[in-house]
Amino acid sequence: MNKKSILVVGSVALDTVETPSGRVEEVLGGSATYFALAASLFAPVRLLGVAGKDFPQKYLRKFQKRGIDISGLKILDGRTFRWSGRYRENLNEAETLSVCQNVLKHFPEVPGHYSDSPLVFLANTDPVTQRKTLEYLSAPRLVACDTMNLWIRTRKSELKKLLQKVDILIVNDSEARMLTGRSNLPAAVWALLEHGPKTVIVKKGEHGAFLCTAGELFAVPAYPLHQVVDPTGAGDSFAGGFLGYLSCCPRITPAMIRKAVVYGAVVASFTVEDFSTRRLEKITLQDITSRFQEMRKIVRF
Amino acid sequence: MNKKSILVVGSVALDTVETPSGRVEEVLGGSATYFALAASLFAPVRLLGVAGKDFPQKYLRKFQKRGIDISGLKILDGRTFRWSGRYRENLNEAETLSVCQNVLKHFPEVPGHYSDSPLVFLANTDPVTQRKTLEYLSAPRLVACDTMNLWIRTRKSELKKLLQKVDILIVNDSEARMLTGRSNLPAAVWALLEHGPKTVIVKKGEHGAFLCTAGELFAVPAYPLHQVVDPTGAGDSFAGGFLGYLSCCPRITPAMIRKAVVYGAVVASFTVEDFSTRRLEKITLQDITSRFQEMRKIVRF
Repeated sequence: MNKKSILVVGSVALDTVETPSGRVEEVLGGSATYFALAASLFAPVRLLGVAGKDFPQKYLRKFQKRGIDISGLKILDGRTFRWSGRYRENLNEAETLSVCQNVLKHFPEVPGHYSDSPLVFLANTDPVTQRKTLEYLSAPRLVACDTMNLWIRTRKSELKKLLQKVDILIVNDSEARMLTGRSNLPAAVWALLEHGPKTVIVKKGEHGAFLCTAGELFAVPAYPLHQVVDPTGAGDSFAGGFLGYLSCCPRITPAMIRKAVVYGAVVASFTVEDFSTRRLEKITLQDITSRFQEMRKIVRF
Repeated sequence: MNKKSILVVGSVALDTVETPSGRVEEVLGGSATYFALAASLFAPVRLLGVAGKDFPQKYLRKFQKRGIDISGLKILDGRTFRWSGRYRENLNEAETLSVCQNVLKHFPEVPGHYSDSPLVFLANTDPVTQRKTLEYLSAPRLVACDTMNLWIRTRKSELKKLLQKVDILIVNDSEARMLTGRSNLPAAVWALLEHGPKTVIVKKGEHGAFLCTAGELFAVPAYPLHQVVDPTGAGDSFAGGFLGYLSCCPRITPAMIRKAVVYGAVVASFTVEDFSTRRLEKITLQDITSRFQEMRKIVRF
């Protein structure tokens, strides 16, 4: 397989998370973190982001162990971005208890060798940072991006400008509704396609994902789990599995994009089985392939 | 195709419904109504229920037009069961504004020729009525049932007794969670299987349906619609499409049950495109088959 490098820009965080299964403090988190650990199961990953001086060495080693290029992870004076959240019985919705941007307000320096990255994931972060990152890249073959309710509320026009420059938009169902003002999900997806992306993927948590590309709809259920321990990072792991798989494809066709969505759903299903990146760190490509095959059986009729 | 008769017991109602698309008053509704109109597209249907003297003749003709046997629809002195409800932007949840049981408290007389019905659907109604109906049947080959939050709250032990006598339980996600006390849906499904049914189907509205039979899971998305006008009757139409298809199968295998779930999802997708039974009355088996084929394309990877 001809594996192409994937650049990810996004947050690297220390998370404190409470779910019905327990509580963890100051654990490894962040959109770029989950994406990088997921995508690196498939292809070389280049991480672009910032952390503070308090970012534990042991977490840096987790990236290195997976061969992730962290020359673009700038360690700045100050504290690492922190997020604290809680999930109640409905694990589909996180309740943010506190957010401290800390060093996250600084734009990371882009190492020169990152500029030829063929695949790019603009993980959830300020749309200005997302757009700025694109300026450093020579000619990416494929750009995907995510966002969140905060930016839809506070940076809508920046976000809309960004959408004109991305090939694939990956959002969750509430973001799709919020961005378009349409409560019907298929209608929201068609409206999003008018903003620029040729492909729109809507993540629906325990209900799977929904894709529209080349005028065709594709729906996949979530991999059925009997226990979800911590949903944090599911969306970024989905994106990591998705772009990771695409990076191995000689050509990106609608059929490949469908398969990539299933790989995304499968990788996310591992992430939520434990807190933080614990489960994601342990899995192999073989574990992923095995669940991918199970997914075929689950949807067959 | 060897088409077998399907007996349905449940409510026949006059509904008043408000959705973001509009409002209708005293229109044809009820669980047995939607089921019968849906299933009669596939097979002969026998309806068992009660209505009041105020039940319009024109609604009776809708049943007759589809060849539905209404010799078991008893017209009693008094008023027909009435339900009034409202759906807001979130079309997945109905808000009940008023319910008048009226004649519904009477158990219908079962015509003698109904007793040999090979397939039975115990549509949502008091579990005592559901269990009593079974006593009149000689040896049904397949019994499926539905229920609702009201009976789970007020008749749980009756309901559990009933579940020991049914082959297939068809409920929605909130009912599955309420019946088992488990918020995780796959876990709820396994718990429901322990109550007796060999097959459990969970309907998830716009997120499709989920099935467990013979130890295997199957998931299907909802047919994607750009506009849902009125979700009332979707679940009963699903059950009608499901059992309707099964009634045409020479043998009921797990593979046939999967296909039947997709037929159920497709029939429900028509029902919600208009108020009351309007759309359901107009469709043909060909319309259904066409969406069934589209569903194959939507889930393929």
